[in-house]
Amino acid sequence: MTSSEVQPGAHMAAEIAEQPAVLAGLVERRAELAAVAGAIAQRPPRFALLAARGSSDHAALYAKYLIEVLLGLPAGLVSPSTVTLYGARPDLRDVLLVSVSQSGGSPDLVEFTETARKQGALTVAVSNTEGSPLNQAAELAVDIGAGAEQAVAATKTYSATLLALYLLVDAVRGGDAADARTIGELAQRTLDGSADGVQRAVDRYRFVDRILTTGRGYSYATALESSLKLAETSYLAARAYSGADLLHGPVAAIDEDTAVLAVTSAGRGGAAMHDVLDAVAERGADVLAVGSAAGDVPAALRIPIPESAEELAPVLEVLPVQRVALGLALARGGDPDRPRGLNKVTKTR
Amino acid sequence: MTSSEVQPGAHMAAEIAEQPAVLAGLVERRAELAAVAGAIAQRPPRFALLAARGSSDHAALYAKYLIEVLLGLPAGLVSPSTVTLYGARPDLRDVLLVSVSQSGGSPDLVEFTETARKQGALTVAVSNTEGSPLNQAAELAVDIGAGAEQAVAATKTYSATLLALYLLVDAVRGGDAADARTIGELAQRTLDGSADGVQRAVDRYRFVDRILTTGRGYSYATALESSLKLAETSYLAARAYSGADLLHGPVAAIDEDTAVLAVTSAGRGGAAMHDVLDAVAERGADVLAVGSAAGDVPAALRIPIPESAEELAPVLEVLPVQRVALGLALARGGDPDRPRGLNKVTKTR
Repeated sequence: MTSSEVQPGAHMAAEIAEQPAVLAGLVERRAELAAVAGAIAQRPPRFALLAARGSSDHAALYAKYLIEVLLGLPAGLVSPSTVTLYGARPDLRDVLLVSVSQSGGSPDLVEFTETARKQGALTVAVSNTEGSPLNQAAELAVDIGAGAEQAVAATKTYSATLLALYLLVDAVRGGDAADARTIGELAQRTLDGSADGVQRAVDRYRFVDRILTTGRGYSYATALESSLKLAETSYLAARAYSGADLLHGPVAAIDEDTAVLAVTSAGRGGAAMHDVLDAVAERGADVLAVGSAAGDVPAALRIPIPESAEELAPVLEVLPVQRVALGLALARGGDPDRPRGLNKVTKTR
Repeated sequence: MTSSEVQPGAHMAAEIAEQPAVLAGLVERRAELAAVAGAIAQRPPRFALLAARGSSDHAALYAKYLIEVLLGLPAGLVSPSTVTLYGARPDLRDVLLVSVSQSGGSPDLVEFTETARKQGALTVAVSNTEGSPLNQAAELAVDIGAGAEQAVAATKTYSATLLALYLLVDAVRGGDAADARTIGELAQRTLDGSADGVQRAVDRYRFVDRILTTGRGYSYATALESSLKLAETSYLAARAYSGADLLHGPVAAIDEDTAVLAVTSAGRGGAAMHDVLDAVAERGADVLAVGSAAGDVPAALRIPIPESAEELAPVLEVLPVQRVALGLALARGGDPDRPRGLNKVTKTR
C-alpha cells in the first residue's frame, strides 16, 4: 500500500502507538548518550544555548529547565536570526550549544550551529536523522532513533527527543537514568489508560474554535506542544501560556466559553498550577486537566496519567494530547498526516 | 475627577499620546543610562540573561536581539520558576542579568534577581518605579521615567522600556545614541500619520474573533506585544509567531477567514518577512501590514510608519497597534483601562 492509499491519520495513529517501544529502546541505548555526555564533561561548559524550531523548540525549552535545575548552568534559547539575518558573531567559548531538530535539515539551524562551532561553542546535534546536515555541522551528535516519521505532525520524535535530552542531561550530572528505566512501560499505561478520556475530549472539542493551554515548570513544554499539535492538525486557534504569564494579562480573555487544557502533574510545577486554575475556574472556563495530578484541580474533564519523576512527566503528558489532536482532526474531516500547507522540513533562513 | 468617573479608555488614550514626550525625555536623560552602562563595562559580562513577565517579556526579547547583535554576547530569557519553584542555584559569575518590570514589584522577579546577585551575576533593574523592590534587589537600576501609568494595559511603559534598553545597550557598546536622537519626533509623526489606518483597522476587526500576529528579528517583539495588547483589551484569541516559526506548522491554520497582523519595517527582519507573507497571501489571509516597509508586501490594509534605524523600529511600530487595541476595545463596549480580571501588578510566585 503506498502512502497515498492509507487511511487519513493512519501514520499519526501508528506513530503515537509506537512510542512506548521507541522510548524503551532509547533507554536501552543510554550508553551511547552517556558517551556524548562524557565528551561534554571533558569540556565543562559555563553556559548552555539551545537552538530549535517548531515542536523541537518545545523540547529545547524542556531541556533548558533540565540544564538550569539539574546542572546549575544558565541557559537560553537561541534566536537563530541574530546570526542568520543580522550576522551576529557572539563569543561562544565555554558555551554548550544543543541544536534540536528531528530532520536535522533546517538550514537556519545548520548555519547557526556551524557559526557557533567556529565561535568556540561545543556543539551537539540532537536529531532523528543520522548523517543529517545538522549532525555534520555539530561536533557531537545524539541520535534519538525513533525511526522514520511519516506523519507531518511530530509525535514519536517529540517524546523521544524529550527523553534523549533528559538522558543526556542526567548522564552529564553523573546519573544512571534510574528514574527513566520504566518510561516505556509508563508510556504504554498512559496510552492504554487514557482512551476513554481522549474520546470524551474529542467529543467535547468537536466544535471548539479556540483553546488555551497552560502549564508550569517542566510541563510548560507540554502546554506549548499541545497548543501547536492542536493548531497544526485541527486548525484551532490554540495558544499556550505558562501558568505565571497567564495571570499577567491573558486571563482577562477567559470566560465561560473558553476551553482550557491545563497540564498538571505531581511535583512543584503542578502544585504551582493550583492558583492559576482557581483563577481560571472563577471565570467559569471549561477545563480539561491532563497529568498525574489532574484529579487535584477543578476541571470539567480529566485525563489522568501514571505518576513519574516530575522531570519525566512531559514525556508522558503529551501522549493523550496527541491522540486528542488526531481524533479531533479526523472528526472534523481532516487528515492529520498531511495538514494543508505543511511540509516535514521547513526551509526557513 | 476620580478615576472611577473618567471615560472608558481615557487613561490608555492619554498614555498613548504621551509617548513622544516620554521617549524624547528618556533620550535627554541618556547620561544616566550611560553611567549604568559604564558600570557594566567595568565588569564585562560573557553571557546575558533577561528576566521579565508580560509586556516586559517582549521588551526583554527585544533586548536579547540587541545584546546578541550589537554586543556579540550570547543571551537568554530567564524562566524564573527554575529558581523560585525548583530551587536552582546556577553559577552566574560573568553573567549580566537585566530584570525588566514596569512596576518593579513582581515577587518572582525580585526573588530571581536576589538569587542571581548572590550567585555572582551583575544585576540591573529596568523599571518605572524608583525605589521598587526590584530596584533594591539589583545592584544597578535604570529608571525609565515614563511617569505613573493608570491604565492596566501597558503602553508608554512598554515603548519607554524598549528605548531604555536600546540606550543602555548602545552605551555599553560605546555609542552616542545618534540613531535615537529624533525618536520623540518620529513617534509623534507615527501617531499623527496613522490615524486613518488605525480607524480602518478598528472597523475591519470589529467582529474578528481570532488574529495571528507575526514579525521577524527585532520586530518579532512587536508581534508578541501586539498579540498580548489585543488579547488583554479586546479578549481576542490572538497569537504571535516569529515569521520563521509560522512556516513551521501554524501556517496550516491560516485561511481566507484568518486575520493576520504582520509587522514589517525597513531592514533585514522586514526583508525576511517577504517569504512569510507570500505564503500567507497564497492562503488568502486578510493581512494588516504595520511598519515602515508595509507598502512592500501583499496586504488588505496598511499602516505605514516613518522609517528609522531598524533597531529602533519596534519603539514606533507598536504605537498604532496600541491605538487599534484601544479603539477595538471601545467599539466592543469594553474598558481598556480596566480589562475584566486584570491587576496592574501580578503576584505570581
